[in-house]
Amino acid sequence: MSQQMALIGLDWGTSSLRAYLYGADGAVLAARQHAWGIRQLPEGGFPAALRAITAGWPPCTVVAAGMVGSRQGWCEVPYVNVPADARAIARGMLRVGACHSHDLWIAPGLRRIAPADVMRGEETQIIGALTRGSQELASAHFVLPGTHSKWATVNEGCIVAFDTVMTGELYALLLKHSILGIGTASDTVHAFSQAAFVRGLRAVQDSGSSGVFGCLFATRALMLAGELAADDVPDYLSGLLIGEEFRLAALRGANAHPLCLIGEPALCERYLVAAAEFGHASPTIVEDAAAEGLWQLAAMAGLLEQARLHSYSGADA
Amino acid sequence: MSQQMALIGLDWGTSSLRAYLYGADGAVLAARQHAWGIRQLPEGGFPAALRAITAGWPPCTVVAAGMVGSRQGWCEVPYVNVPADARAIARGMLRVGACHSHDLWIAPGLRRIAPADVMRGEETQIIGALTRGSQELASAHFVLPGTHSKWATVNEGCIVAFDTVMTGELYALLLKHSILGIGTASDTVHAFSQAAFVRGLRAVQDSGSSGVFGCLFATRALMLAGELAADDVPDYLSGLLIGEEFRLAALRGANAHPLCLIGEPALCERYLVAAAEFGHASPTIVEDAAAEGLWQLAAMAGLLEQARLHSYSGADA
Repeated sequence: MSQQMALIGLDWGTSSLRAYLYGADGAVLAARQHAWGIRQLPEGGFPAALRAITAGWPPCTVVAAGMVGSRQGWCEVPYVNVPADARAIARGMLRVGACHSHDLWIAPGLRRIAPADVMRGEETQIIGALTRGSQELASAHFVLPGTHSKWATVNEGCIVAFDTVMTGELYALLLKHSILGIGTASDTVHAFSQAAFVRGLRAVQDSGSSGVFGCLFATRALMLAGELAADDVPDYLSGLLIGEEFRLAALRGANAHPLCLIGEPALCERYLVAAAEFGHASPTIVEDAAAEGLWQLAAMAGLLEQARLHSYSGADA
Repeated sequence: MSQQMALIGLDWGTSSLRAYLYGADGAVLAARQHAWGIRQLPEGGFPAALRAITAGWPPCTVVAAGMVGSRQGWCEVPYVNVPADARAIARGMLRVGACHSHDLWIAPGLRRIAPADVMRGEETQIIGALTRGSQELASAHFVLPGTHSKWATVNEGCIVAFDTVMTGELYALLLKHSILGIGTASDTVHAFSQAAFVRGLRAVQDSGSSGVFGCLFATRALMLAGELAADDVPDYLSGLLIGEEFRLAALRGANAHPLCLIGEPALCERYLVAAAEFGHASPTIVEDAAAEGLWQLAAMAGLLEQARLHSYSGADA
C-alpha cells in the first residue's frame, strides 16, 4: 500500500467533466468522462459529481482545472496574469477544502490585461503539451480549437500572450438560429466536405483586411444562386470561421513559429487543412494534454508529496 | 369617382407588413402596419393578410416589395443584377395575378454576382430616398441598418454595388444565446449608453485589419474583470458590430462620398454617432423611403395608368 500513488486529476469544463486516476509515475491508470459540466451538474451539485465520477477510486488529493474555478464554478480561483509558466500557474492554485475525504485543489485560469482576455483549463493543457511535446514546442503557437478557440504564444516554456475567438460558438449559433442555417440539414451528420471547407477558407483569405464578418451573408447568397449546395453550407461556414482564426493569427505574425494543435482529432483535422492553406509548416498534434498538465501542476505545487503522505495515512485507516 | 386614384403599396418583409394607400399625386392617404411578415402569416396565408390589411380600401392595383418576392414569399420574382436603376427594377416586376379584386405586382430584389450578395426591399427604399433626397444623393452611399444591414453605392441614380452585413441578427444572437449575454439583462430596456457604444466603436477602430471577430470575446473578459458593467454590454456589443460595418466601408473607400441613412430613428441615431467617429460628414436621414419607392416603381412600370383605368372600372361596378 505504501507504493500506491494517489492523485486524481479533473478536467472540468462548461459541458463535460473528465477524471484521471494516476499511477506513481504519472501514468493514467483509469479515465472517466461524464456530461456533468458546470452548467449541467447532477443533483447535489459539485460534491455529488466529484463523488460519483471517482466512485471506487482511493481517497486522495484531487487537482482540478477549467471552468470549475470560475465565478460560476465550485470556487472562484483568481486569474494569474500572463506571462506565466507552469510554476506561476501552480502557485496560483487554491485549496477548496476537504470533500468526501479528498483534498481538492483548483488551478487558476490565465488573464491577459490588454487586449482583455481570459482562459480556464487551456493553460493546463498547454502545460501538458509542453511536457509531452518535443523540445521544439518550448517556443511555439498553441492552438486549442473549440467553442472558444484559444491561440497562445509560448516562449521558452512561458505563456506570454493569447487570444480567444468564438469560432465554435458562432458556428453553432449561425447554423441553428440564423438565416444561414435555413434550408440546411443542420441536424443530420454529413461526411466532411473538404472542398466546401477549403472554399470557405479561401473566401476569407481573399477578403484581405475585411475578414469574415463581411463574408458571412454571401453564404446565403451563394446558396440562393445555386452556387453552394445546402449540404455544403455547414462546412463552408466552418471554413469561413476557422479561416478567420488563421487570418487573424497571420496579422499577429503567427506564421513565423511552429504550430501545436491540442484538441479533438476531427476538429484538429480541419485545422491541419487550414494550416496548409495559410502556409504553415505541418503542425504537431498533442493528445491527452489535460491529463499530463494536471499531473505537472500537482507536481509543481508539491501536491505529489502530499499525495504520498495521504496514501500512507490511507493505508493506516 | 373618376378623380380617385387607386394604388396600394406593400412593404412586405420577413417580420412585418406595411401598407400604404396613395392619393393621385402619390401622397400617402393612409398607412397600416402589422406583424404579418412572411414568416408569421395569419391563417389563410398571403391572400388573407393582404385582404385584412387593405380592408375598407378601394379595390385597386397593388405594388409590393421585399421578401414577399423571395422563394419563401408569395411568388418568387427573379433578382435583377446590379448595376440597376429604378427603370431596370421596374422592368423586373412580376404580376402575380388578381386577388380579392386587386392586381398584384411584386418588385424584384437585386443581386450582386461577385462577391455574391442579394437584397429584397431595400432597393425600393433606395429608389424612394433618391426621389425624396437632395440632388447630392444621386451619387452617394446608402446605409440601411437592420437585421441584415445593407450598404449600397449609388452612382448617378444607379445602384452599382452593395454589401450585406448581418449586424442586427448577430447582435440579437450573441446577446440571447452566447456567453456574452450571460449576466446581462437582455430582456429589460436600458437607456442607450452612448459611452459604452462609442467604446465598442473604438475597440474595432483600434483593431486595424483584425476587425470585430477578434474583439468579441473581450466583451466577456472586460465584464469579468469589472471593467465593463453588465448593463453596458449590449451597447458595447452594438458599438463593436456597427463599428465593424464602418471599418469595412472604409476599406471599400466609402469615406469619399456622402452618406444617406434609411431606417428607424433610434437605429439611425447610433449610425450618426458611428459616422462621426469614423470621420464621415454628417449623413442625411431619409424617412418613409419605402412608400415613396413603391410609388416610383409603380409609375415606372406604367401601373399608375392601369390604376386609373382600374379606378374607372371600379366606378362602373
